[in-house]
Amino acid sequence: MLAEPFHCDFTHALHMGHLGNCMLNAADFHSTARGFGMSYLNTVNKTWVLSRLCIEMEDMPQQNTRFTVTTWVENALRFFTQRNFCITDEQSGRTLGYGRSVWALIDLSTRQPTDILAVKDGDIVKWIDSDRHCPIAAPGRVKMNSDAPVVSSFKVRYSDIDINGHVNSIKYIEHIMDLFPLSFYREYKLHRFDIAYVAETYDSDTLHFHVDDLSETEKAIRVTKSSNDGAEETEVVRCSMIFKKN
Amino acid sequence: MLAEPFHCDFTHALHMGHLGNCMLNAADFHSTARGFGMSYLNTVNKTWVLSRLCIEMEDMPQQNTRFTVTTWVENALRFFTQRNFCITDEQSGRTLGYGRSVWALIDLSTRQPTDILAVKDGDIVKWIDSDRHCPIAAPGRVKMNSDAPVVSSFKVRYSDIDINGHVNSIKYIEHIMDLFPLSFYREYKLHRFDIAYVAETYDSDTLHFHVDDLSETEKAIRVTKSSNDGAEETEVVRCSMIFKKN
Repeated sequence: MLAEPFHCDFTHALHMGHLGNCMLNAADFHSTARGFGMSYLNTVNKTWVLSRLCIEMEDMPQQNTRFTVTTWVENALRFFTQRNFCITDEQSGRTLGYGRSVWALIDLSTRQPTDILAVKDGDIVKWIDSDRHCPIAAPGRVKMNSDAPVVSSFKVRYSDIDINGHVNSIKYIEHIMDLFPLSFYREYKLHRFDIAYVAETYDSDTLHFHVDDLSETEKAIRVTKSSNDGAEETEVVRCSMIFKKN
Repeated sequence: MLAEPFHCDFTHALHMGHLGNCMLNAADFHSTARGFGMSYLNTVNKTWVLSRLCIEMEDMPQQNTRFTVTTWVENALRFFTQRNFCITDEQSGRTLGYGRSVWALIDLSTRQPTDILAVKDGDIVKWIDSDRHCPIAAPGRVKMNSDAPVVSSFKVRYSDIDINGHVNSIKYIEHIMDLFPLSFYREYKLHRFDIAYVAETYDSDTLHFHVDDLSETEKAIRVTKSSNDGAEETEVVRCSMIFKKN
């Protein structure tokens, strides 16, 4: 894939949200080719739901360079499957970083998790590639202060809502990146991004972004939603970010 | 190009901003192949600046369909060149819509317009295709009430700023689309979008979106910037939108 200029930030590096989008596309392409894509699953009233995504990059693809996303299934259990990613620079072949993701399979009517191994008689296990190594840490529990302050709140917007009718997974990444000023990105670059999707958000909701400044280079973010002013907040996303000084 | 699911809105139609991005990419690809791309121009300390963009669509590309953007130069004068676009559905060949754009060439040091016909001895005129017809109206002056109310104001964010260090042309489109609630897009679809880029915005600026509700289906938007609280607003973008009832 080409790191198109307008998918890059002011430092000429690809936006993390755009890389996340490429990874989700690779996952869909890979699972579709093996009979487990969204389009097949929809015919049996099921769909994949992204539960965790973590991306750890030594370097981001740079403007106008080409990069490759490869993906493989690490494991498949009854209620979760783990899929990993490797991002390489196309010209040099150098590994730029890795990703890990955890997916649940839900029933479209009940929105409840359903047995992954019941689909096509557990065919998915044929595609497990347990030999391939993913050297980055597995997603851990994001610990943060329960009283971390709200730094931004806004009502969900038209462009946040995707074809599934709820806030798009990648949009949270973009909104979280936007919590920090440009001056911060002049000094620091994002090294690891770890996000847990806890609940779905709809167009009538308001999102609240709580930020816990764990250290100069470590941030924890809790995103909550509320249905109207003064209503109780429900957690929808939890995220940790590790930055490196430029 | 594929209308990727996560570049589509809740109605399963491609986002207007994403289509705009595809058009700008097509323009860069087309001009680069003819020796007038950004990468060559940067070597002579010049760059293209988008002055007007207008897009008129009968239908937007739908999720998971493939579409083609073709582009040609309609005219090239000393200080402006006009470039048109046609968007077709790849499978049926049906025309989905058209675009028009106006570009200036600026000197990177002075940020002032410079003579397009002085580059490579006016070579650009060789690429003018005046026979090809673009049936949509040329961009007109956007008329609106000078006291149209501000419906949204926010400080420029990290993801707004592109590789050139100012707010990205496409980001304005996304922000303008987000001025209207999802309920509006359930009833209306965008038919024509006409945007004039008046001035550049930087990361320390605050943007203000003034909306004039000309009618149920016609909106005019003025975007202004201010450098700090209470400072005077300067116009940066003016835009008109024509919607059609679904």
